Amino acid sequence: MIKLDKENSLAKLNGANIHNYLDKIEARDQGFYKIVDNDVSEILDFAKSVEGKYEDIVVLGIGGSSLGTICLRQSLTHLHESIELHVLDNIDPQYMAQLSDVLDFEKTLFIVISKSGGTPETLSQYFYFREKCDNFVFITGPTGLLRETGEKEGIKMFEVPENVGGRFSVLTVVGLLPAALIGIDIKKLLEGAQEMRDKFLSEDLEENMCYQIAQMQHQHGGEGRNMTVMMPYSQRLIRFADWYRQLLAESIGKSKDVGLTPINALGVTDQHSQSQLYMDGPDDKFFIFIKVENLGPEVLIPGDEVYYLKGVSFNKLMHIEQKGTTDALTHNKKPNITLNVPEVNEHNLGALFMLFEGATAFLGEFYGINAFDQPGVELSKKFTKELLTRPA
Amino acid sequence: MIKLDKENSLAKLNGANIHNYLDKIEARDQGFYKIVDNDVSEILDFAKSVEGKYEDIVVLGIGGSSLGTICLRQSLTHLHESIELHVLDNIDPQYMAQLSDVLDFEKTLFIVISKSGGTPETLSQYFYFREKCDNFVFITGPTGLLRETGEKEGIKMFEVPENVGGRFSVLTVVGLLPAALIGIDIKKLLEGAQEMRDKFLSEDLEENMCYQIAQMQHQHGGEGRNMTVMMPYSQRLIRFADWYRQLLAESIGKSKDVGLTPINALGVTDQHSQSQLYMDGPDDKFFIFIKVENLGPEVLIPGDEVYYLKGVSFNKLMHIEQKGTTDALTHNKKPNITLNVPEVNEHNLGALFMLFEGATAFLGEFYGINAFDQPGVELSKKFTKELLTRPA
Repeated sequence: MIKLDKENSLAKLNGANIHNYLDKIEARDQGFYKIVDNDVSEILDFAKSVEGKYEDIVVLGIGGSSLGTICLRQSLTHLHESIELHVLDNIDPQYMAQLSDVLDFEKTLFIVISKSGGTPETLSQYFYFREKCDNFVFITGPTGLLRETGEKEGIKMFEVPENVGGRFSVLTVVGLLPAALIGIDIKKLLEGAQEMRDKFLSEDLEENMCYQIAQMQHQHGGEGRNMTVMMPYSQRLIRFADWYRQLLAESIGKSKDVGLTPINALGVTDQHSQSQLYMDGPDDKFFIFIKVENLGPEVLIPGDEVYYLKGVSFNKLMHIEQKGTTDALTHNKKPNITLNVPEVNEHNLGALFMLFEGATAFLGEFYGINAFDQPGVELSKKFTKELLTRPA
Repeated sequence: MIKLDKENSLAKLNGANIHNYLDKIEARDQGFYKIVDNDVSEILDFAKSVEGKYEDIVVLGIGGSSLGTICLRQSLTHLHESIELHVLDNIDPQYMAQLSDVLDFEKTLFIVISKSGGTPETLSQYFYFREKCDNFVFITGPTGLLRETGEKEGIKMFEVPENVGGRFSVLTVVGLLPAALIGIDIKKLLEGAQEMRDKFLSEDLEENMCYQIAQMQHQHGGEGRNMTVMMPYSQRLIRFADWYRQLLAESIGKSKDVGLTPINALGVTDQHSQSQLYMDGPDDKFFIFIKVENLGPEVLIPGDEVYYLKGVSFNKLMHIEQKGTTDALTHNKKPNITLNVPEVNEHNLGALFMLFEGATAFLGEFYGINAFDQPGVELSKKFTKELLTRPA
């Protein structure tokens, strides 16, 4: 079970209003915390029906259609699976050409993901690859260009629930279908999420970690700590911090007075890149560490040239360096919390997704904003369309 | 030639004091801008002597010993080179085991990089792999444990110049040796760097882009914009922003009043992840975009279902989306500049490294701090050693 160590949080927690805030979230009619009860048999049936058929799976998607899947892949699969999962989340022609070069299109399945069905980057990629390949599946909303095209072409389609936004969609078919295709146990993902969802709905402060984390972020935000650093000490979780980056930025970045900037970091790696700033720099950050108790079989560091490494394992060194870092931050009065995760597996990753989705929902209500829209991206989309259609 | 578009910078530039600041940098006796004149024949000779011998190169290094190499690999090599370059920049035992599983140790060369010769993570990795493999090269300073071990074991060693800090070392043997081994033209890297070095030393404001960028960052920092977002529109440059993250964070993050937080982003990908925050959120960021004029052969987007994509190439779409984003930021009064890079090649990447190293050196002088040390990481190192040697 995931536990929260908040000893160094420098925040004052108060659960008197959990009930009110839960009511406010409920009133927004968002489905992210209900999806854990959804039926996944259509996904599992499809995965079974294509078993052994493909060597490469390519997700065409961007933002909320890609970040969850990238995290699932990094966290839960070994470097060299028998099926390789690619996520094409950019339109750089060199990047697309590189991928094209290595694919056998007979043995490749493309999963095209766009909730609106009109994401120009994703549509462009689809137009490009449909000239090379015949194997497509669409994940999209009930209407839109992708839906129409799929109907016309007779392409297998899965539907994104309407009331779940892209950045909250990792535990819908958006993340679950690619995951199932590379052998991830998606039922366990949902079980873990369900366990955390029950805590999210709890009015008991000690149990409701979502509420606690949101309240800490909100308090520190009010005291000028306008950045949240997420730093897992696990190579497997490096992309979890990327996934959270979108969730926090898009959900809370809403006005000149409301916005926390997410910072992704990785232990121990970024101790050698960001620690100087974190330790000595301005007091403008709140730190969330993720410690993984079981980092796999113990691997001893051989040799005795360095006295303090004698008899130490890499596992222990990871843990000790994490503690050295949080102790030093605490010594320097920089607020930090640590999530203790027993190990990186489906169950715990499902719980982590739900933990931060729930925390973000509370945070939106604390700020009195709608955490589920993204009006700010419309202007650049408008400019882009105008530039594209302007006579040369 | 790299050009700076500063039309939307919202900064006032003044070059009256360039001379003074150059003198101050000179007085610190730092070698980063002199290395472009160094002789690289030892590196090239070594690369030639091992040609065809190895299938995998593994760099053991962290922070300044890895970030430049990761950037060089991502920017200048194709996805599937005949020699694969791995950079092991973490000690997570699962990550190390994954890499071990895929290596043929007979055909693998390890490059162990630690300037001090005492980096515990890198030494631990070396102790681990020397039990499995016989092929090692060391890159280290004139003294330290790695130097001593190399002498005892008769291992080929290259020396890091003493007055070049880790985060400024990409254009020394630290980055150049791995680069040369995978076929990158390191002379062209240095030529590009040299061109920019001459601009860095110029007292003409218009020519000195390093000075201009530093002055903008300093002004905006003084106006509460304490974050610098670097957002290249090129998949190849995604790791350049990571490299810069260390350079800015460690060099400038020095006290409660002095520190800019670097944010790495990627166009167009992060438009779908961070734009909402950048557009509508607090005015606390200064944006540096990197536009690559030549993104390779034009790749047309086929199909005519989307009117505004008809006849458009992916290349053009990348450029237009970048302009749509900077126009929208400008409309929202968020200061931004764009570096126009003709293409991603050795020459221009060398220039980009030097550009930001020079800018960071000026920035340190503007703040009146030493940009070349990192005292803040000592405390966590001390705590880590104490924790490791404490009786259980």
